[in-house]
Amino acid sequence: MTTGGERRARVLLSRLAEPYDERVQQVVAEHGVEALVGYVLRDGRIPGGPDLHRLGARVERATAVDDAEVARLVGARVLVPQDPEWPACLDDLEHPPWCLWVAGPGRLDEVVRRSVAVVGARASTAYGDHVTAGLCVDLVGRGFTIVSGAAFGIDAAAHRAALASDGCTVAVLAGGVDVAYPRANAELIDRIRRTGLVVSETPPGGAPARMRFLARNRIIAGLAQGTVVVEAGLRSGARSTLKHARELGRHVMAVPGSVDSLMSQGAHAEIRMGAELVTDGAEVAELVGHIGADLAPVKRGAQRAGDDLPDELRRVWQWLRPRSSSGVDEVMLRCGLTLAETLGALRSLEREGLAEELLDGWQRRPVGSR
Amino acid sequence: MTTGGERRARVLLSRLAEPYDERVQQVVAEHGVEALVGYVLRDGRIPGGPDLHRLGARVERATAVDDAEVARLVGARVLVPQDPEWPACLDDLEHPPWCLWVAGPGRLDEVVRRSVAVVGARASTAYGDHVTAGLCVDLVGRGFTIVSGAAFGIDAAAHRAALASDGCTVAVLAGGVDVAYPRANAELIDRIRRTGLVVSETPPGGAPARMRFLARNRIIAGLAQGTVVVEAGLRSGARSTLKHARELGRHVMAVPGSVDSLMSQGAHAEIRMGAELVTDGAEVAELVGHIGADLAPVKRGAQRAGDDLPDELRRVWQWLRPRSSSGVDEVMLRCGLTLAETLGALRSLEREGLAEELLDGWQRRPVGSR
Repeated sequence: MTTGGERRARVLLSRLAEPYDERVQQVVAEHGVEALVGYVLRDGRIPGGPDLHRLGARVERATAVDDAEVARLVGARVLVPQDPEWPACLDDLEHPPWCLWVAGPGRLDEVVRRSVAVVGARASTAYGDHVTAGLCVDLVGRGFTIVSGAAFGIDAAAHRAALASDGCTVAVLAGGVDVAYPRANAELIDRIRRTGLVVSETPPGGAPARMRFLARNRIIAGLAQGTVVVEAGLRSGARSTLKHARELGRHVMAVPGSVDSLMSQGAHAEIRMGAELVTDGAEVAELVGHIGADLAPVKRGAQRAGDDLPDELRRVWQWLRPRSSSGVDEVMLRCGLTLAETLGALRSLEREGLAEELLDGWQRRPVGSR
Repeated sequence: MTTGGERRARVLLSRLAEPYDERVQQVVAEHGVEALVGYVLRDGRIPGGPDLHRLGARVERATAVDDAEVARLVGARVLVPQDPEWPACLDDLEHPPWCLWVAGPGRLDEVVRRSVAVVGARASTAYGDHVTAGLCVDLVGRGFTIVSGAAFGIDAAAHRAALASDGCTVAVLAGGVDVAYPRANAELIDRIRRTGLVVSETPPGGAPARMRFLARNRIIAGLAQGTVVVEAGLRSGARSTLKHARELGRHVMAVPGSVDSLMSQGAHAEIRMGAELVTDGAEVAELVGHIGADLAPVKRGAQRAGDDLPDELRRVWQWLRPRSSSGVDEVMLRCGLTLAETLGALRSLEREGLAEELLDGWQRRPVGSR
């Protein structure tokens, strides 16, 4: 059969079956999408396979639709794995979507090549929103696309921050790309569609049903190289996105917060289960980005004078007083060194400009005088 | 030589040498404490060993002290490894103390048998103090002794919480057990000494010098089965306690906080380095306590109706509406099941009291009606 046949079969199948239907997946793995659709259109009987005649219940409505016309009407395009724009990273999914409806100017495979999913609680706190914004602005500055689910709370904060910093962002919806949900985010979703991409495996017009939210999360995890949960209650759907990322072998990250916050409990539980604790964009980029280019600076306190000295010198230097002098014997006793070692250390410190010999002994040079 | 000789030698050595002096440790490992002290008292020359004559500088003052009299005067006792009260866990240290001065009614080896070190920033925040208090009260309730360093901030909050909940607490000081430092914590240290234990390797009267604070941290880590850092800046001394705990193979834990708080940066860095993230006493006890007795309950959200159903039943149940009915065909289509599967699932839900058949179809039973 032709590629056009496979495309048509996939789009039709997306109207007939949910993508995580194990029995359908099994038949596709054995016979291919076109053969499966052929069986369903006939009578649902697969030679030696499971009974799929129940898919027939949707055939009439599904075949009545002109998908090209639908695509034109909603301003979307439909991708199948054979298309150059199909992101290869989705093929890692145990249940890849049959096809993807995509609306927006970005090219999906390219924009997700360097991307992070940032997800979290709908009932986020001000802390969560603020951390999400900082994280996403930082990641956009490092050239990452922000993938999320356009939900209230963390998702919306992630998309907004990406848009505000002129970054690229991808919203993966549970319903059709033309069904703005939640309604209150309609304007946000519209802005994403104008500059980034709105994506769904549900055909246009499809309702954002509960099962589809859970199924959608696997696509969020599948598109990005890593997923960060910013805030999540223990039962948050965001944790299912992290679970998918873990199963896909992608980077799994969570942002800590107050142990008193219910909205951080899910993040803390994930860190205890092995998710990497991240506190800023540099740490995310270090994990997700390419080795070398994105190494996060090691966090350390302000450099103190004497920090880079060998142990013995630092010990002597720390015992010296800045405004009164100490005799060599006193220094020797305090540092537990021999006289020769003590004198040697004092001379070295003098050369470094960290100590000076006065008439009555040795004194530490003021910090910063070096 | 006699055990009395070893005891005297150790106490004398604690006045002559710092315990982390590698060369002294080396001679002790080869020749024993008594021989080393003998060499020092003679001329500091060790046959085939390093030159230790510098220790001689302290001999005169050290030998002039009557340790029994000192102990009586400050109300302390001095322990050496041969004593039954000496905690065997200290022998894991690379540089164990020569001896330990101990003041208080507790028996050191017994009170630390089930103990957690809780340490952190001196400049703690209200969040850190509050989390420390909750954690320590919880741990005391589980029979743990709280070990800390009597410093400002987290240390003081830990001791105070233990005292307030009539628990046992051990303060390890950098100076002598009779030198209350910081001065502002004198009353706290006195209360610890009356009900728990105040411990130091520094002889009475010894100043809490900077090097001794760092050395003291290894004893805190060495006494407890695990160390928790609640809040710590990146350069906090509390991190050195955690480092010792890690080197000793003890449990290493840190409490998360806001990513905006400088005082949580050290804790987050430790978690990124492998410390276990802990949010309450149950999680600490699970790690540190005995397997079985101290298993923390798995954190999960409130149980929802339908949670314990098999996948297929839950799917059908979720699609049913609570206040209007659905036809079997509608349920079948929505759930992607065969007619037989759908009917079977509906009957099962009916038996469980989770669905009921009305004249025009099936309806979900209200949550909690079961």
